[in-house]
Amino acid sequence: MPPADIRMATASLSIQMAQGPDIVDITHRLLQLVAEAGIVQGHLSATMVGSTGSLTTIEFEPGVVEDLKMAVNRMAPPWLDYAHEQAWHDGNGHSHVQAALMGPSISLPIRDSRLRLGTWQQVVAINHDNRPRRRPVEVTIIGTGAEPS
Amino acid sequence: MPPADIRMATASLSIQMAQGPDIVDITHRLLQLVAEAGIVQGHLSATMVGSTGSLTTIEFEPGVVEDLKMAVNRMAPPWLDYAHEQAWHDGNGHSHVQAALMGPSISLPIRDSRLRLGTWQQVVAINHDNRPRRRPVEVTIIGTGAEPS
Amino acid sequence: MPPADIRMATASLSIQMAQGPDIVDITHRLLQLVAEAGIVQGHLSATMVGSTGSLTTIEFEPGVVEDLKMAVNRMAPPWLDYAHEQAWHDGNGHSHVQAALMGPSISLPIRDSRLRLGTWQQVVAINHDNRPRRRPVEVTIIGTGAEPS
Repeated sequence: MPPADIRMATASLSIQMAQGPDIVDITHRLLQLVAEAGIVQGHLSATMVGSTGSLTTIEFEPGVVEDLKMAVNRMAPPWLDYAHEQAWHDGNGHSHVQAALMGPSISLPIRDSRLRLGTWQQVVAINHDNRPRRRPVEVTIIGTGAEPS
Repeated sequence: MPPADIRMATASLSIQMAQGPDIVDITHRLLQLVAEAGIVQGHLSATMVGSTGSLTTIEFEPGVVEDLKMAVNRMAPPWLDYAHEQAWHDGNGHSHVQAALMGPSISLPIRDSRLRLGTWQQVVAINHDNRPRRRPVEVTIIGTGAEPS
Repeated sequence: MPPADIRMATASLSIQMAQGPDIVDITHRLLQLVAEAGIVQGHLSATMVGSTGSLTTIEFEPGVVEDLKMAVNRMAPPWLDYAHEQAWHDGNGHSHVQAALMGPSISLPIRDSRLRLGTWQQVVAINHDNRPRRRPVEVTIIGTGAEPS
């Protein structure tokens, strides 16, 4: 394999989100960034900035969205006692735990200038906090600007 | 640090998987891709294409495989009611939730032309769907083709 | 976008950790690696080497640390029976499951020569094993060495 003409682009998204758990489809915004970057083959890393949000992929339809909200609330129920509350009293102990369990980052393939996802697979940001948040998502795209010859 | 001779290689694996939860060791296939790419130092990103599969690492021995299947079924039990079912009736509401909680992607270090994993650490693909699936896993490898001088 | 001057740096951290679940803040060590690499814009991939450890981000304060320990022990309780034990009898069946559910890797943005994290967001290594461990974390940093002109 010869050395490639590797390029990089960075961008910051700002996602308005409702009280958690809120799940927002960000696929189209990532696709737009990939197109703007002019990267044909490579990968995209996205990271949720902040300790009460997370990123993953789902089939973005109302049923799965509801089911996933229920599941994160089973993993770290809002009604449990949290040690975080004893110092901070901001009512979001469960939010911190949910986000840590889900993880802040995701890595996705770029093929033929698009994200290679399943037909019913979308990238979602999740706000676990107990209040609405405008959340930054940082995106780094690395790859080649043209098809390998 | 001087600019490096950075290279990239991409590949697509196709993993035949049984009804979920099924857990398949894909380490040897990733090692082969790293060797073919000729990349000595760098990292490998792998992403499960599809919203009912996931990737992680485990000690791939029958006990841990069984224990992890039990654990994902505790997080999102097949016998619960899922809102996804009300629209789709395909019986895999739990599969979507399990996969979203696990996450679709993984990032692994390449050192000395190999994946740097623990001695008893293997990379696994998980099919959470309630039927056998042939699942694509997209792999992007970025790094240098020779030891830094 | 013109081709960029892409650089890479790799490093290995060694984290002394107590009996699991133990959670250690490694943010300052990653920041030091980014500074040493001289990379201004890009991303950092970190991977826990070993099948009973994981990486994520949290607000690193004693309450959240305690809450997250409780949560991973709810997901895979130490007091359950694990199939792993039937062959290995080393008492860490839950450790393997917890680590697999959390995932070994994380991807973080580098902006202006620093990790772009939330104000109260730190990167943590988690030891899930039932004994103290010195754990390697492999770090790969890729990006550009100067601001885009």
